[in-house]
Amino acid sequence: MNMLCVGTLAIDSVETPAGNRERVLGGSASYFAYAAGFYTPVRLIGRTGNDWPEDYTRSFQNHRVDWRGVTSDSQAKSYFWRGRYLQDYQDRQTLEIQMHGFDRYRPSVPDFYADSEIVFLAAAIPTVQHQVLEQCTRAKLVFADTVDMWIDTTRSELLELLAKIDGLFINDIEAKQLTGKSNYVQAARSIQAMGPRWVILKKGEHGCFVLGPDLMLAIPAYPSDRLIDPTGAGDSFAGGLLGHLCENMDSEVLGERSAVAIDRRVFVQAVKHGTAVASYTIESFSIERLQQINREDIEKRVAQIDSLMGHCG
Amino acid sequence: MNMLCVGTLAIDSVETPAGNRERVLGGSASYFAYAAGFYTPVRLIGRTGNDWPEDYTRSFQNHRVDWRGVTSDSQAKSYFWRGRYLQDYQDRQTLEIQMHGFDRYRPSVPDFYADSEIVFLAAAIPTVQHQVLEQCTRAKLVFADTVDMWIDTTRSELLELLAKIDGLFINDIEAKQLTGKSNYVQAARSIQAMGPRWVILKKGEHGCFVLGPDLMLAIPAYPSDRLIDPTGAGDSFAGGLLGHLCENMDSEVLGERSAVAIDRRVFVQAVKHGTAVASYTIESFSIERLQQINREDIEKRVAQIDSLMGHCG
Repeated sequence: MNMLCVGTLAIDSVETPAGNRERVLGGSASYFAYAAGFYTPVRLIGRTGNDWPEDYTRSFQNHRVDWRGVTSDSQAKSYFWRGRYLQDYQDRQTLEIQMHGFDRYRPSVPDFYADSEIVFLAAAIPTVQHQVLEQCTRAKLVFADTVDMWIDTTRSELLELLAKIDGLFINDIEAKQLTGKSNYVQAARSIQAMGPRWVILKKGEHGCFVLGPDLMLAIPAYPSDRLIDPTGAGDSFAGGLLGHLCENMDSEVLGERSAVAIDRRVFVQAVKHGTAVASYTIESFSIERLQQINREDIEKRVAQIDSLMGHCG
Repeated sequence: MNMLCVGTLAIDSVETPAGNRERVLGGSASYFAYAAGFYTPVRLIGRTGNDWPEDYTRSFQNHRVDWRGVTSDSQAKSYFWRGRYLQDYQDRQTLEIQMHGFDRYRPSVPDFYADSEIVFLAAAIPTVQHQVLEQCTRAKLVFADTVDMWIDTTRSELLELLAKIDGLFINDIEAKQLTGKSNYVQAARSIQAMGPRWVILKKGEHGCFVLGPDLMLAIPAYPSDRLIDPTGAGDSFAGGLLGHLCENMDSEVLGERSAVAIDRRVFVQAVKHGTAVASYTIESFSIERLQQINREDIEKRVAQIDSLMGHCG
């Protein structure tokens, strides 16, 4: 199956209790694509500016990421984010955002990506996510992510999007914000009623909760004592999860989009793989740790996660 | 094996977003003993006052709880607690505590309990827990619980106790308070270094994290959308866990206390059973829900917890 990711490519400056980095590779699409690249070639749609380091591009290209969908803007710089983690990582401050024209960027799906079957719409203005979705005419599974800003400011547009996607990644606090339910199980059920058949609630260090058709999962996070920078954990999780799904689903057996089923065992493994990849992401800044590991390291961590849950294999 | 529990028997008045109850059965020892009673006879040491309803006593006696160790004070009332859960259960307020002499109560272990092998010291003044421990000369496994008040006010006494027990139940926030570590894995490791070979970190709706000798577990809570009253969830969890251990460990194979080992499979099942029992506790006030269920209901929920963690079959 063909995997497409649309989202933000950014340059980040990050300060955490463990240290800091200036102008490193960041953005939701970066983390997602690199994580998914462990499992499957990833088609990427995004935008970079004239200060985007060639090195960053090569990191992706060497990792099965198809860069042809990335637009380079020679007239402006790349999207820039500066942030700081405070109080032992309990709080995150955005210190600076430089859009550099990114807010006017409207991703378009090139013809050679038109046959993409699994699509990930990273967090963005819901109308922009919607426009991309409408161009993915052969998609079989469309998953999206969203964040608090869009729930706050573009709620009705977000609800329209939710009615048209197959799965939503969302963190537990945002799920409560979106639904008004204080109980996360009720929140997930409410979101499911808004459209997406799969709701993947991300709970950070507490793991995830997944609702699907005839599926309910609660998988703990890997209990890390090597937390350096949590940036990108959620998108890496989504990348590992959907990458693993993409690798293990057979497009031949997929029917109409609304009827696509995912085998329980495949989904369970996918969630564990997402969890494992994300657990590596946080062990360093940017995608630095992901660049050091291979598929075997991920499999080892999946086995550790199995062991944590008491599987006696 | 013989199980002993020492702790508080109380009368509670509770207000939650779901409703309220006046003067219902409460206290750490009540929840622990009732939960453990599903698995094994439980010897109970505690104190009641002259307003303690006979009904409450009978509820325990009908559930394999040995009441002979409970002291009835004819000159004073029972320990009373009034509390309120706020903000969708995110915060708990203690509105009123009436000690009625409970603060002067010093539990003593009667001769007929002297051969107790598994001992649970519910949260109490650490020196009182210590005094009980010293009377349990034939104990093979001593687990304790503690709460923020004792960490704050009797830290050195608590540290002395920790050096002498085999396992500690503690919630994640209190573990951070006790150790100064903001990462819960590091906090658990620090506590282990203080003495207890098993550290069971309770994370409420996020389940638990367990460190033991050659053991690390992360088991999610049952994702309940029927939360009524979380009071007693932690003690029920401990009761289900230790009750199941007691049922499934063979005292014949136990050697010296410091060398007692617990089979991994037995421990894993025990943690799931604790999780299952606690998930029922919160579905009503007091022990009301526990009084409606039987062992088969617990086994069903353990199977659901297995399924949540992706066990197939």
